[in-house]
Amino acid sequence: MTIKEQILGMGANALSASRALANLSTKDKNTILIAMADGLESSAEQILTGNDLDIKTAEELDLTSAMIDRLRLDEQRLAAIADGIRQVASLPDPVGEVISNWQRPNGIDITQLRVPIGVIGIIFESRPNVTSDAAVLCLKAGNATILRGGSEAIHSNKAIAKALQSGGEKAGLPHNSIQLIPFTDRESVQHLAEMDQFLDLIIPRGGAGLIETVVSLARMPVIKHYDGICHVFADKKSDVNMAASITVDAKTQKPGVCNALETLLVHKDIAEDFLPLVADQLISLNVELRCDKDAMAIIGDGVIAAEETDWRAEYLDLILAIKVVDSLTGAIEHINEFGSQHSDCIVTESESRAERFLKEIDSATVFWNTSTRFSDGEEFGFGAEIGISTDKLHARGPMALRELTSYKYLVRGEGQTKGQS
Amino acid sequence: MTIKEQILGMGANALSASRALANLSTKDKNTILIAMADGLESSAEQILTGNDLDIKTAEELDLTSAMIDRLRLDEQRLAAIADGIRQVASLPDPVGEVISNWQRPNGIDITQLRVPIGVIGIIFESRPNVTSDAAVLCLKAGNATILRGGSEAIHSNKAIAKALQSGGEKAGLPHNSIQLIPFTDRESVQHLAEMDQFLDLIIPRGGAGLIETVVSLARMPVIKHYDGICHVFADKKSDVNMAASITVDAKTQKPGVCNALETLLVHKDIAEDFLPLVADQLISLNVELRCDKDAMAIIGDGVIAAEETDWRAEYLDLILAIKVVDSLTGAIEHINEFGSQHSDCIVTESESRAERFLKEIDSATVFWNTSTRFSDGEEFGFGAEIGISTDKLHARGPMALRELTSYKYLVRGEGQTKGQS
Repeated sequence: MTIKEQILGMGANALSASRALANLSTKDKNTILIAMADGLESSAEQILTGNDLDIKTAEELDLTSAMIDRLRLDEQRLAAIADGIRQVASLPDPVGEVISNWQRPNGIDITQLRVPIGVIGIIFESRPNVTSDAAVLCLKAGNATILRGGSEAIHSNKAIAKALQSGGEKAGLPHNSIQLIPFTDRESVQHLAEMDQFLDLIIPRGGAGLIETVVSLARMPVIKHYDGICHVFADKKSDVNMAASITVDAKTQKPGVCNALETLLVHKDIAEDFLPLVADQLISLNVELRCDKDAMAIIGDGVIAAEETDWRAEYLDLILAIKVVDSLTGAIEHINEFGSQHSDCIVTESESRAERFLKEIDSATVFWNTSTRFSDGEEFGFGAEIGISTDKLHARGPMALRELTSYKYLVRGEGQTKGQS
Repeated sequence: MTIKEQILGMGANALSASRALANLSTKDKNTILIAMADGLESSAEQILTGNDLDIKTAEELDLTSAMIDRLRLDEQRLAAIADGIRQVASLPDPVGEVISNWQRPNGIDITQLRVPIGVIGIIFESRPNVTSDAAVLCLKAGNATILRGGSEAIHSNKAIAKALQSGGEKAGLPHNSIQLIPFTDRESVQHLAEMDQFLDLIIPRGGAGLIETVVSLARMPVIKHYDGICHVFADKKSDVNMAASITVDAKTQKPGVCNALETLLVHKDIAEDFLPLVADQLISLNVELRCDKDAMAIIGDGVIAAEETDWRAEYLDLILAIKVVDSLTGAIEHINEFGSQHSDCIVTESESRAERFLKEIDSATVFWNTSTRFSDGEEFGFGAEIGISTDKLHARGPMALRELTSYKYLVRGEGQTKGQS
């Protein structure tokens, strides 16, 4: 069999599995999830053996120590992954929810019912925990998954997928509910992305290069998790201490994530009071400041001149671009022009100015007097999340179980026909 | 300027227009819609002149009289289009709806708010009324549109788009809210489908060939309106008169539409009673019956033997495929295998059998004792619809104003930071 034929076979198997999954009760699915967590723990030896192989290859290839650390599994990390599965078991099941129900004048009764999507493809890069996190969330929402991980973690991923599927089968998980593609070349991505007769959705989890590849190849819907070029705007009516506290938190509390702050905009009327205050705090936390001319003139020494590229930069590091703007309008225009429609914040005491910002900023999550770091499924109360969607269709912002479902309409009648009505 | 540069320019203009549209009130939008309807009527002369040109070309090209009729506009058809616009003005505005609102333990307040999608591309074939119908629905939901119609209707489409935009501008419609691409070659489709920096969504309206082209080219989400291979299953527990009445209605009331019946499945236990009854009615209405062996043996003369391709046929005509199945399970398996996940119906007096069918059929709309012809935005009470989506992401089934929106989250706080919480 060619690679293409093998992947098409996996697609057909996943479709069968998805039909069986759609008919499982919440209780069945939760029992299966617990069995999957148990299966993961009881397969620890095989998984860690596979992981050792991956680590050895990574060391031979001279990958950075940060990359090797992301790849590494141990008993403790496996236990954390298994706990994550048990947590998903405890979350409410989105499937079966009656979204709405109404009657028409001719007496037909219409119900909009939440149902699984079907088959979801997940293409991801190095971290092997994604294998479990993504498959488990999809499964809770009643979906079958086809996973395609990177070559760095292939032995870990194979062992994890096998442990999840066989652990789950002990409690009734349908065959082929969780399948991992054993190939790591680009060709397998292409076959997966073109297989729209079996796949309802594809989610790339990784860098811009991976997402770009999937977008250009995919025939089915793609939900993208692109960069977060997030802004805080310190308005002229802001409480400067609150503005500084939110800025410092959004930039430094965890700088390597997509909801971390990348550009600080400051209203000119408050710049002289605010900028020295916030700059002191940021510099003491080792944040490099890249400033426009006006901000540089106020902060003075120890900062770097920003270039045009800084306004579109997702540093994911202790670096912050700073710009002074003339007005609320200027801030809104800058964010809508240079931002990535992810998470943006205004700090102000003025309700009317805040409401204008909330309305006119075209981003997935818009904040008033709160850190952008709250743009997160768990912080929103959704439980686990599969990511932060930067798309506008189907799922926008924190994407959790509900966003892994579709719906269908059930229409009940007593013989009504169109010709009669 | 190249065609690509011109289309990119239209994209940038549409993005600007969409920002302005998102800030319009419901009252503003409705006033604009009325002005657009007036503009269409007062431009009747220019539109009909353009239409005459298209008709003349069509006649020179020897198009069928059915195609020419679909193309033709007159005072009456224009008045109907204008009335359609006024009806859309009277529909509720989906934008601004609070979908949900909740507070988190740390005091942040989260609102999920319905907002426009942004810029929508519509690619359509001959009928010039789509120019108005699609643009107007998108506009009501706060979206800018870029329309690309077929060559057959290019002069009609240009005149209609111009009348709508300039009529609307008299009441404050932002420039470039409705733009028509003046090119009708494939190259323009490609540029539009690749322009994901400006377009949030693309909707192809037309045959399978058009949809296939858009799916393979598009980088942004596509919502597809594919075939309806719709089924009625007459269960062993059905009232045969109701089953016949629903079958006849679904097949003959308007055979050329996507929610019309294409395949009738009959439970073997009822076949001898039901098939002669329904066949008589169908044959008297000139429906050609293509039957499997069992159905043929019962109905006898005057029917045709079905071939394998009949189970996947969307006839859109007075033709019906008929198959006898052994069981409810057999019916469900046939529909999930051969159907197009559009609209499928069970006729039965048994609630438990109906509920199993409603649950296990993986289609956008599943009916119990009701004609599939009710799979329609107006019949659902949505007002006008843009089509019936055969996709599972974002919009499934009848797609109306609500499905032409996205949402964003507004998070209001009092200085909360992640480090504190």
